[in-house]
Amino acid sequence: MSTLPARGMRDFLPEEVRRREFVVRRIKDVYARYGFEPLETPAVENIDTLLGKYGEEGNQLIFKILKRGAHEATGQADLALRYDLTVPLARVVAEYRGVLPKFFKRYQIQPVWRADRPARGRFREFYQCDVDALGSTSTMVEAELCAAVSEALAALGFTDFVVRLNDRRLLNAVLDAAGVPAARHGDALVALDKLDKIGRDGVARELESRGIDSFAGSRVLDLFAAGHEAPPGHDAAEAANAATLARAAAFVGEDERGRAALADLADILALTASTPADGRVRLDLALARGLSYYTGAIMEIAVADLPGSLGGGGRYDELVGMFLGQHVPACGFSLGLERILVVMGERGMFPPDLVHTPADVMVAVWNHGRRADTLELARELRSAGLRVDVYPEADKLGKQFKYAAAREVPFVAVVGDDERAAGTVALKDLRAGEQVTVARADAAATVKARLQAPGSELQAPL
Amino acid sequence: MSTLPARGMRDFLPEEVRRREFVVRRIKDVYARYGFEPLETPAVENIDTLLGKYGEEGNQLIFKILKRGAHEATGQADLALRYDLTVPLARVVAEYRGVLPKFFKRYQIQPVWRADRPARGRFREFYQCDVDALGSTSTMVEAELCAAVSEALAALGFTDFVVRLNDRRLLNAVLDAAGVPAARHGDALVALDKLDKIGRDGVARELESRGIDSFAGSRVLDLFAAGHEAPPGHDAAEAANAATLARAAAFVGEDERGRAALADLADILALTASTPADGRVRLDLALARGLSYYTGAIMEIAVADLPGSLGGGGRYDELVGMFLGQHVPACGFSLGLERILVVMGERGMFPPDLVHTPADVMVAVWNHGRRADTLELARELRSAGLRVDVYPEADKLGKQFKYAAAREVPFVAVVGDDERAAGTVALKDLRAGEQVTVARADAAATVKARLQAPGSELQAPL
Repeated sequence: MSTLPARGMRDFLPEEVRRREFVVRRIKDVYARYGFEPLETPAVENIDTLLGKYGEEGNQLIFKILKRGAHEATGQADLALRYDLTVPLARVVAEYRGVLPKFFKRYQIQPVWRADRPARGRFREFYQCDVDALGSTSTMVEAELCAAVSEALAALGFTDFVVRLNDRRLLNAVLDAAGVPAARHGDALVALDKLDKIGRDGVARELESRGIDSFAGSRVLDLFAAGHEAPPGHDAAEAANAATLARAAAFVGEDERGRAALADLADILALTASTPADGRVRLDLALARGLSYYTGAIMEIAVADLPGSLGGGGRYDELVGMFLGQHVPACGFSLGLERILVVMGERGMFPPDLVHTPADVMVAVWNHGRRADTLELARELRSAGLRVDVYPEADKLGKQFKYAAAREVPFVAVVGDDERAAGTVALKDLRAGEQVTVARADAAATVKARLQAPGSELQAPL
Repeated sequence: MSTLPARGMRDFLPEEVRRREFVVRRIKDVYARYGFEPLETPAVENIDTLLGKYGEEGNQLIFKILKRGAHEATGQADLALRYDLTVPLARVVAEYRGVLPKFFKRYQIQPVWRADRPARGRFREFYQCDVDALGSTSTMVEAELCAAVSEALAALGFTDFVVRLNDRRLLNAVLDAAGVPAARHGDALVALDKLDKIGRDGVARELESRGIDSFAGSRVLDLFAAGHEAPPGHDAAEAANAATLARAAAFVGEDERGRAALADLADILALTASTPADGRVRLDLALARGLSYYTGAIMEIAVADLPGSLGGGGRYDELVGMFLGQHVPACGFSLGLERILVVMGERGMFPPDLVHTPADVMVAVWNHGRRADTLELARELRSAGLRVDVYPEADKLGKQFKYAAAREVPFVAVVGDDERAAGTVALKDLRAGEQVTVARADAAATVKARLQAPGSELQAPL
């Protein structure tokens, strides 16, 4: 029998779980400080809740669950695994509209499942890390989301990111102004969305292959190409954004949607200057975003020298209405937890004091008859907040020390006959290779002090 | 379209998530102090990993996932949802035997799925909260598990629990000595497991209906009935356990398994006296536990005046071998998170200072032109660690105050024209109904001080 996890799925051994929990906790703390509240929904949804929400391709990628009991033989599915966190949010907002606040702000960090072909960095079970604000069309919402996401990334140690900002309405106005017929906007956006990946010539070819007039295409690409690079920072960002706004305004002229979008974008840019997103937000007319449900502002995190993004989002004022039959504006941001973890690992961004040992100290067993002593000392050290492992068997001491060393447990505590008589503990610092004997009452404090000593990469976590 | 969660599944709104996270964090902190390390496995397993591990009834309750793409039409399943955390652990131990330590100790707190008929307190998605120690047959393992579980429950505020302890080998020896043929032990255990639920007469009838000699049955029930009640506490527990050990020893006589089990039980009882489980562990010859894979000690948490248990576990030295083809002893404990949450709610055990507000303070919008001021103040208050909500629209102030009050946000901060000119902030304490004006630099400290004032049920969490 294979003992591998299912295809595209992953087991997370302790060190990996600690890294994941570190990142999740940092992000949660920031989102909580922004007044977002935690929400959790079931992994399993009724299949009708999910089907038809993600396009034809999405339908194919949904994991479907067989009916049970007598119905199993029909081969039919009535349930399915959550595909994202946005559709469940829309369902929740519809179901609990009587108890949720008008401006419901939630974060949700849970796994989703997609039957994609697994590839490097692409998994069939992966975490999404969503933050959404419902109930308001105000640009304060976009500004707060850009701020929260910027602060979350900064809390993780990212310094070189930019929030690319655009607006779906502006994109449509630009395409209109360039002469792309409304019916072809969808096709054009799919092609333009690939600008980062396949470059200007690639997009031009793809637009042409989709039957979009090459002159219209090159007008759009000319607009997109200008001012595409601006370093982060308040002044540089302000200047670049002002120039881009002016260029876009000239391009769309009197188009009503275009002007409304530009007014909102200018507003978002001005408001974010008063937040931790100051200097981070860059108007980028070429940003298109794949999902079809966006209706206004769209955002995406770009990091220097990194293809792809660390997350993205936007305004989707129509999705909740699909469940509620009633208009509920919404705007959200999804951070790509898996990608963030990969980048943080590659860049060595996890703090050196992130706990990576199974315990702060292991208590050895002196001999079989004295096992209770081991448990008693462990109890004392744990009461002081230390993480304490206990060697379970009365093996030779050398073997016990070796075991602790192999697991990188920094300290081993032993109460031998002498120590017992003297009321002391022998503490071996396996990193320094030295042993000290301390009063039993001082054992925990000694371990803590050494763990937190300068140059130590360890610390007691509690 | 229904907006309810799928049958037997639950949405957790913010207040419920906070309670769940509080409990999970407390338990994790205790388990980490015991040297257990976190493990996470995928929700989805290959179907062959799960089938045949939980008996025929278990097979029926597994949620099975349809094959994808061209194979979907076959109606066949190749994957399934995790049914418990023990079988995935056994798979992980087999798969990563080269990198895991010899005495792998892990905790795992994740949801599992069972297609049970939903009932009050029984869900189709629920969390298990497992702690297991592998690689040693030492009774130190059982003692540490009893200690860890006792400390976790104490950390949650439980004071009236007892860890019932027994041993599968002893049960078998008792049945032998009573004259129940070995082939009927399984049947007898199923009946005896119901003693708490259906009482002595009920069990006697069930034994008889299963064809077990009524004299043998009543001998076992006599043994079980004696000394069944003992209050917690070191002395009372010690006396009661000594009496029970003696009674059981007399009953099983020279039976080798029985004597080995009694020696281990005596050892576990002696060792736990040196741990936080002191006075909590009660030898209970009637404890049987449902699962068939136990091979030695079995444990279960009983709480005064509460039917059922808060969790249970035991030694299962054969399960990992099913995957590895190599003997790996194991012992574990599973806390019933859902039941713990229900009892804590009913008993009012959640601490009053558990955050139950969406934010510590809401910053109001003075007027449309001054929205950036709102974001700036929010930024300052968040930097100080407060949870800060921002009203998103330039509504009338009265409406904004009402919104904050309805959501039980304790403070509203406003920078009006006067405050702006004076460099101050108007802070309204919505609980006290009073308003103070403080220097802007003091606003965060003022909110924090008032949140932590005696009599306040609120506090800043960060």
